[in-house]
Amino acid sequence: MRVDGERLREDFDALAAIGATPAGGVERPSLGDAHLAARAWFLARAEAAGLETSVDAAGNHSALLRRNGPTLLLGSHLDSVPNGGRFDGALGVVAALHVLLTVQAAGLELPLTLEAIDFTDEEGTLVGLLGSEALAGVLAAESLEAPRGGRAALAAGLARAGLREDRLADARRDPASLAAYLELHIEQGPVLECAGAQIGVVTGIVGARSYSLHFRGAAAHAGTTPMDARQDAGLAAASFAVAAEELVVRNFPGCVATVGDVRLEPGAYNVVPGSAHLALEFRALETPELDVLETALLDRARNEAARRGVELGITPVGRWEPTTLDAGLGAVIERVAGGLGLASMRLPSGAGHDAQVLAGITRAGMIFVPSVGGLSHAPGELTAWEDCVNGANVLLAAALAIALPRVASAA
Amino acid sequence: MRVDGERLREDFDALAAIGATPAGGVERPSLGDAHLAARAWFLARAEAAGLETSVDAAGNHSALLRRNGPTLLLGSHLDSVPNGGRFDGALGVVAALHVLLTVQAAGLELPLTLEAIDFTDEEGTLVGLLGSEALAGVLAAESLEAPRGGRAALAAGLARAGLREDRLADARRDPASLAAYLELHIEQGPVLECAGAQIGVVTGIVGARSYSLHFRGAAAHAGTTPMDARQDAGLAAASFAVAAEELVVRNFPGCVATVGDVRLEPGAYNVVPGSAHLALEFRALETPELDVLETALLDRARNEAARRGVELGITPVGRWEPTTLDAGLGAVIERVAGGLGLASMRLPSGAGHDAQVLAGITRAGMIFVPSVGGLSHAPGELTAWEDCVNGANVLLAAALAIALPRVASAA
Repeated sequence: MRVDGERLREDFDALAAIGATPAGGVERPSLGDAHLAARAWFLARAEAAGLETSVDAAGNHSALLRRNGPTLLLGSHLDSVPNGGRFDGALGVVAALHVLLTVQAAGLELPLTLEAIDFTDEEGTLVGLLGSEALAGVLAAESLEAPRGGRAALAAGLARAGLREDRLADARRDPASLAAYLELHIEQGPVLECAGAQIGVVTGIVGARSYSLHFRGAAAHAGTTPMDARQDAGLAAASFAVAAEELVVRNFPGCVATVGDVRLEPGAYNVVPGSAHLALEFRALETPELDVLETALLDRARNEAARRGVELGITPVGRWEPTTLDAGLGAVIERVAGGLGLASMRLPSGAGHDAQVLAGITRAGMIFVPSVGGLSHAPGELTAWEDCVNGANVLLAAALAIALPRVASAA
Repeated sequence: MRVDGERLREDFDALAAIGATPAGGVERPSLGDAHLAARAWFLARAEAAGLETSVDAAGNHSALLRRNGPTLLLGSHLDSVPNGGRFDGALGVVAALHVLLTVQAAGLELPLTLEAIDFTDEEGTLVGLLGSEALAGVLAAESLEAPRGGRAALAAGLARAGLREDRLADARRDPASLAAYLELHIEQGPVLECAGAQIGVVTGIVGARSYSLHFRGAAAHAGTTPMDARQDAGLAAASFAVAAEELVVRNFPGCVATVGDVRLEPGAYNVVPGSAHLALEFRALETPELDVLETALLDRARNEAARRGVELGITPVGRWEPTTLDAGLGAVIERVAGGLGLASMRLPSGAGHDAQVLAGITRAGMIFVPSVGGLSHAPGELTAWEDCVNGANVLLAAALAIALPRVASAA
């Protein structure tokens, strides 16, 4: 049994046209008009094919092939980062829909319900992982009180979507109602391409922590203040950024640390910076390593500040713990990929996904397909179409293997 | 003959109240309401004392004690940087006014005209050195076409002040009409205080050059892009900032280099910066050293960019050449300071001043008084009042020595 690659392509292209950007990507920030249009297209497409549809209290959009038995969730997301690519999220939703369509067309009676689900606000232009956290019953009040995108944007988005903030938690599902969760996604990194693998079997999702570091020195006249009389907050931040990279490369192979932003004040050619706000994020696959990395990085920041006689404020601004995905599902994905003649490899995900949330309440597995040049979150994001179809077929085969374990193992 | 320290203080305080900030400084950006009010106060104060006043086509405000003979200009400026201090500029204008008042009160008939002048827009919130450049006949069309503060702010300021952009050049003076230029100013650095000197005899004004450096790498996902697969423009900028400091400290004693601002794009926790705009400024007292420093710094920027595989754009955004002040006037200032029992020292100015422009058309000299802690361009800017009075008396004595060279040398 295979998905219909041509229909899959038609549907993928139809979706890519919604919020399309001149550069070839999409702009579908969470609960914005383009995102809502994409979700409406998804429901309409499912209904036209005779599938049941539903929208829950957190705005998660679903197409269902309902049978007796627990639900096998197949999902991803239709929102995008600003000026994002066509594949991130959308591929997984369209592929999930085509798993249902293929099973439906084959007249196959499975002992479970198949649900293709589009989670709300995965990318975090508003909150991040909002829909999956609501479904898993772990959406924290603080996430809504101080959302990444600001309160005003969240309130406006919910209003546009007809959602009530005080009812989001109603989207919670009973874990006993779920059989498992599977997600197909582009890798967004260069590992599969470099290794020549067609399918990635995701072992886990890295944990990430982010901190706002505030170096406070003394603003001073850039002409009259000798080099040795300065407390240059900008240089403290620069020294730390350079040292952080060196530390990770030398002592933490496989981990990453990023200084994504720096803001200097007052920020003029002729004034020594008195203040530097620095955005630090780092990731590791295991919590103990993340702990050691955190200690090493923050110690380094304190040392650089002390060395230059500037003060340092450290504010945690985000964290997600590392997630191990289900090893049994990983073995299933690996086996069905092999059965389809595809070269697979195990790898961790450096990016966050709804799967890390679902892993808290059910068995969760993820399938990666290669990203050309490792590029993602950009209009040039690309996965060869053959790889997309391969990914959808692995998703289908894995779903069938979960639904019909004896048939699959006999195959 | 001495200035009246108490009246000087009253006038200084009256001026400091105009545009006063809660933190104890002043906010009088060029041609803003507070600046115009300060200038109006200056003219009214001079007129009330029976002095002649005038405003030229560039808005320079003057009080005059007119006699036959050339004009000895005594000046500084009443505008301030945003959130600036009370002393920068204002001390020199009030002291100049009191030189005229003291000579007038003594009934002394000098063989030249004394003119206390408040130059327009010294600080550069609009153009920088606008009034003195117009007076010296060197105001460049480009400075008006692309002013530091933007075209809109310049146009609005000129309109507020009742000035016409196409008439600014009419402020030009015939160099033959000028006897010399003297300026009293706070040091704005820590050198006099550290040396225990009461009076600084300024030997020259450093040259400064500024560049906008644009490092262009590749924005990438901070979670999925391994450290060794990045072209991190932010790290290239940070490495350069650290290297620039090291270079100047090691190889260019007495010079300064400052990275006053950095702007990363897209500027998010979870994205490797693809672009970094960096504001670089450096200063040296001699043109040859400035040339060598420039070459060394820009080479270093190119090396850091190349090492990280990012591109580098280099755009010059400003330069002023080093200025040597008149050695004869320096000797006069030194001699009169000694005659008043004040400890003086020679030093260069790390900051720019109207004197560097006037030096192009007449003999120019500058007197510095100590800045507590070297602090300037900040509300806490402070010069001990005794030092302010000393500075005013040195200005008076130097003016008399220039006006009556035989009397002075006989004293």
